[in-house]
Amino acid sequence: MSTRTESFLIGLIGDGITESLTPPMHEREADQHGVRYLYRPVDLTVINRPGADVGELLRAGRDLGFNGFNITHPCKQIVLEHLDEVDPQAAAIGAVNTVLIRDGKFIGYNTDCSGFTDGFRAGLPGANLERVVQFGSGGAGSAVAEALLTTGVQRLDLIDVDVARAAQRATALAERYPGALVETASPEQAPELVKVASGVVNATPVGMHHHPGTPFDTALLNARQWVADVVYLPLATELVTAAKALGCQVLDGGHMAVGQAVDAFRLFTDLEPDRQRMRDHFLSLTGQSPVAEEQHKGAAL
Amino acid sequence: MSTRTESFLIGLIGDGITESLTPPMHEREADQHGVRYLYRPVDLTVINRPGADVGELLRAGRDLGFNGFNITHPCKQIVLEHLDEVDPQAAAIGAVNTVLIRDGKFIGYNTDCSGFTDGFRAGLPGANLERVVQFGSGGAGSAVAEALLTTGVQRLDLIDVDVARAAQRATALAERYPGALVETASPEQAPELVKVASGVVNATPVGMHHHPGTPFDTALLNARQWVADVVYLPLATELVTAAKALGCQVLDGGHMAVGQAVDAFRLFTDLEPDRQRMRDHFLSLTGQSPVAEEQHKGAAL
Repeated sequence: MSTRTESFLIGLIGDGITESLTPPMHEREADQHGVRYLYRPVDLTVINRPGADVGELLRAGRDLGFNGFNITHPCKQIVLEHLDEVDPQAAAIGAVNTVLIRDGKFIGYNTDCSGFTDGFRAGLPGANLERVVQFGSGGAGSAVAEALLTTGVQRLDLIDVDVARAAQRATALAERYPGALVETASPEQAPELVKVASGVVNATPVGMHHHPGTPFDTALLNARQWVADVVYLPLATELVTAAKALGCQVLDGGHMAVGQAVDAFRLFTDLEPDRQRMRDHFLSLTGQSPVAEEQHKGAAL
Repeated sequence: MSTRTESFLIGLIGDGITESLTPPMHEREADQHGVRYLYRPVDLTVINRPGADVGELLRAGRDLGFNGFNITHPCKQIVLEHLDEVDPQAAAIGAVNTVLIRDGKFIGYNTDCSGFTDGFRAGLPGANLERVVQFGSGGAGSAVAEALLTTGVQRLDLIDVDVARAAQRATALAERYPGALVETASPEQAPELVKVASGVVNATPVGMHHHPGTPFDTALLNARQWVADVVYLPLATELVTAAKALGCQVLDGGHMAVGQAVDAFRLFTDLEPDRQRMRDHFLSLTGQSPVAEEQHKGAAL
C-alpha cells in the first residue's frame, strides 16, 4: 500500500479537538501520495491534562516515534519554551502551530498565517482594508493579525479580554509594520469600533461547537462590511450565518483550516500537497455547504 | 485507501529493537485488510530510557492515541504492575508481551507462548521430549517453558544466570504441570545437562545482532539432539548454524516471531490474520534462508 518505506506519525495537541478535520485531511492527502500516515488527535479535554503539559506530551511523542505535531488552542504560545528552534516568522508571531521532530529536536513553525493569507486573498478579493477589527489575540489571533497586515490592512484594532496580551501583540506588530496603525481595545469598546470598521475578523474560539455564541453583537454589522471567521467547526458559525444574512461578504474558517493543513503537510513530509484536492476533501468531510464559496461562485456567475 | 474508518497505532517497547521485523509484519498484514495501521518501534536504547519506564511509556502512549503495544526484553515482567487486567495464561507465565489499550485501561496478554507452541509443532515434528535444557527464564523464557510443558516435555532444566529467578519459575511450573519434572541449574552446570539432553532451547537474547555469541559451548552438542532458538535477528544465529552443521534438527526463531505477531495482530484489530501470508512476509523481510524450513522441506522430499 505504501510505496515509501518512510512512514509518518503526527498528532494534534489541543483542547476539544476530537472532531477536528485536520487529521483526516492529512491522512487522505498522504494516501494520494502512497505514504503510510497516521494522524492522531490528542484532545487535552479527553485525556484530562492541562495545556501546560504540552512540552511533556511533545517529549513523550518524540520517544514514541512521532514525526511531528500540530498545536492548537490553548497551547500555541506556551509550546514556544519547549522548542529547540523556531522559524523566524513563527517567532515574530509569537505562536507555533506546527512542530517538526528532527533528530530528536523540536522545530516550530506557524502555518496559520500563510493559511489565513491564502484564504483571505482567494475568498475576499477586493476587500476594503481600511479599518479592520479583530477579536482575539491569542495563538490563532497572532497569526491572523500578521496575515492581515501582510495583506495590506491600514488600521487594525485588536480586541481581547486579556487587554495586556493584545497590547503586547500590537506593540510588536506596530514595530514590524510601521506603515499601519495597530490599536488595542477592550471588549466594552467593541460596539463603536465594529460600527466603523470595513471588516471584522473573529480569531477567538467563540462559535465552535463547544463554545457557542458570537464574539460581539452581530446587530452592529451592516452590508458594506466583510466578516471573516477562523472557526471551521461548524463552517457556518453563528457569526458567519448572521453576517451573511445581513448581506456582508463572508469568509468561513475553512480556508484557513485547509491552508494551515496544506503547509503543515508539506513541512511534515517534504511532499508537495495538492491544495485543491485537500480543499475538496475538507468540504466533503464537513458535509456542510461551503458558506463563502457558494456566495462567491454565485457572485461570479 | 483505508476501507475502515478505525485506524491502529501500535508500538513495540524494548531494548535494541529498532531492526525488529514485527512492525513491518503487522503493517503489511493490515494493508491486506485495508486498514490504516502504523507500528512504531520504541527502542529504549535509542531513546535512552530504562526498562523501568515501561509504565510511563504505556501511559504516554494511551494519552497520545496508541491502541496497544508489544512488549519485549527487558520489560515483559516489569510491565505487569502497570496493567489493569492480565489474561490468565499471561498471569500464569508471569510475563506479558502484548498490551491492549481499551477504554483507557491496559490489558495484558502473552502471545509468545502460543507462538512458540505453533512453531515447535510445525518445525520440529516428532521431536524427542524426554529431557530439554532451556537457557533463559526471563520474559520470553517463561513463555517458552510453558509452551514446552504444554507440548509434553517430560523433564525441563531451566538454566539462568539469575538462579533465583529460574527457581521461582520452576516452582510455579512444577505446580501447574505435576506430571513433568522441572529443575533449575546455574550456567556452570550447563555442560553436563546439555550433553544428556534430547533437545536444547535458547530463550536468552544471546545470538542477537547486538548480543553475539552462544548461550553455551556448542561443541557439547551431538547429531541426535534438536536445537531451538527464539532469536530471529539473525535467523541463522551462531547457535542454530553450529547445531545444523553438527547434524542437529533445528528450529529457528522465525516461527515464534511470526506466531506471536499473528496472535497479537488478532488481539489488536479483531481481524483474522493470514498466518502463511505473515510468514511469507517475514521470510521476505529477513532476506535470509529460512534455516529450519529448508532443512525440513529437504527432509520431506
